[in-house]
Amino acid sequence: MGAQFSPQRYDHDVKLVVTGTIGIDTVYTPRDKREGVLGGSAAYFAAAASQLNPVRLVAAVGGDWPSDHRETLSSFPGVCIAGLDARPLSRTFAWGGRYFEDVNRRETLFTEVGVLQEAPPPVPAAYRDSEFVFLGNTHPAVQLGFIDQFPARKLVVADTMDLWIRTAHSELTALLKRVDGLIVNDSEAGELTGFRNAISAGKKILDMGPSFVVVKKGEHGAVLMHRGGMALVPAFPVEEHQVVDPTGAGDSFAGGFMGYLAREERTDAAALQSAMAYGTVMASFALESFGLDRMRILRAAEFQQRLSDFQQLARVG
Amino acid sequence: MGAQFSPQRYDHDVKLVVTGTIGIDTVYTPRDKREGVLGGSAAYFAAAASQLNPVRLVAAVGGDWPSDHRETLSSFPGVCIAGLDARPLSRTFAWGGRYFEDVNRRETLFTEVGVLQEAPPPVPAAYRDSEFVFLGNTHPAVQLGFIDQFPARKLVVADTMDLWIRTAHSELTALLKRVDGLIVNDSEAGELTGFRNAISAGKKILDMGPSFVVVKKGEHGAVLMHRGGMALVPAFPVEEHQVVDPTGAGDSFAGGFMGYLAREERTDAAALQSAMAYGTVMASFALESFGLDRMRILRAAEFQQRLSDFQQLARVG
Repeated sequence: MGAQFSPQRYDHDVKLVVTGTIGIDTVYTPRDKREGVLGGSAAYFAAAASQLNPVRLVAAVGGDWPSDHRETLSSFPGVCIAGLDARPLSRTFAWGGRYFEDVNRRETLFTEVGVLQEAPPPVPAAYRDSEFVFLGNTHPAVQLGFIDQFPARKLVVADTMDLWIRTAHSELTALLKRVDGLIVNDSEAGELTGFRNAISAGKKILDMGPSFVVVKKGEHGAVLMHRGGMALVPAFPVEEHQVVDPTGAGDSFAGGFMGYLAREERTDAAALQSAMAYGTVMASFALESFGLDRMRILRAAEFQQRLSDFQQLARVG
Repeated sequence: MGAQFSPQRYDHDVKLVVTGTIGIDTVYTPRDKREGVLGGSAAYFAAAASQLNPVRLVAAVGGDWPSDHRETLSSFPGVCIAGLDARPLSRTFAWGGRYFEDVNRRETLFTEVGVLQEAPPPVPAAYRDSEFVFLGNTHPAVQLGFIDQFPARKLVVADTMDLWIRTAHSELTALLKRVDGLIVNDSEAGELTGFRNAISAGKKILDMGPSFVVVKKGEHGAVLMHRGGMALVPAFPVEEHQVVDPTGAGDSFAGGFMGYLAREERTDAAALQSAMAYGTVMASFALESFGLDRMRILRAAEFQQRLSDFQQLARVG
């Protein structure tokens, strides 16, 4: 486990694990740019989830992975990096993107897959008792391969992206039959189902296998659909000038969502609904900085205050 | 007052009035079309508000106004049509529009202004004690002219549209300094302020005069901003195939919003926040039919049930 791991921060240590990518990001926003940013689905997820519950990370990096990225990740007391697979002769996954004035829109400038085209990272034996499993965005065949490596799993939730919907549809279909939940954004849900409307898309996704689906709508909030009903949350209100970098907001939502469920050791519908608020508030912090800068200095009291503000803002009736 | 007016439905009779348009609409949706539909901002508002509180209507119609439209409007027990100004030699305002597959988008096919280019309808003397005033969408100079005709006013709220933002900006600016609240949709808020983001736009509108503003985002809900804070509601979840005709959903939102405030005789921030849910649920019924068909048969128990469902769906934390 990471040198800084200090489980005494938590009441108990429910086993939460994330598999996914670690990336070296280059990000252009309308007002700024940053190179060599620590990113990737697993990094963002872990940083967010660890605010609520310890989290184990399974991901591969190359020989070019900066030592300060390792230090950053290790600096999160709740993140265990024993599952970080360093490959000296390989290159780390790298991604470059540019956001438009409407920060809901971005274009990918480049993708260097690096270690992602190699064998998936091995799951450490000590992680086999993980109960809450998040399969961060990567090829669905790789996600599928992870599932049986967690025989103690109680809840398996996956993310995916438009690329896999287009290029790995059969693997994705197989994955959906094996997971309890799917977290996707609205455009991905639309591509996967043919329905632009988030409610219609969510229903169709439930038909494809998962017991629940969360459709994220960026600044418009998120919809949870499960077999017994649904739940709605608005986004935490943010003005565009407050958005420093939206990268990783979705993974941070997932981290807050799963971190809450793991902390509560619950998977019922009421818990899923509450988890939506935790995900929403976590995402609102993530976009206040490039990379994990904001998450590194997030205090529990700050999080609680914003969560409480959010509950007041979004009170209905 | 209208023949069917029966104030015994209500605990008390706070004076609520709406000024605006009565229209003869032609509506094309992706799956249907309808001609000669009773529409207009005042009609939709009144039908919705009357579900919660009696409402007085001030609007003009021409000699071509169908008698069955009068019967329909009169059939709402809470709508007083004493302020309906019938002009035999004029023509009723007529509007034609077509909705796209994405029902959030529409195009105007034609507009025949008719009575709208004549003098505004007179306010009956019996309406001068109105306390809650909604200025439905029409030229801002006309809206402005109505304000002083309600000397007992406690709350004045206006709607507007893109046309007036472009062609009557100075009159609209003057109007904003005289109203307590503005209800607009997100594209209108963007045009008025230059901010695409609803929070940023809402803040700017508060600087222009009103004490509060509601920015409606269609299927994405609505944002209330006032000097003491803000509130957020998602939309009631609706699939596209459930949307028969979105025309008038915004006016129905306003009707539910103002009807609630009038019924409660409150204008404080907590009441405004609650009113958002009433507006949201009222709008969700309005789009289930062409014209006022759904509103005509809406039962109080149905409304309460959906409101209760909505509160459960949108519970946060």
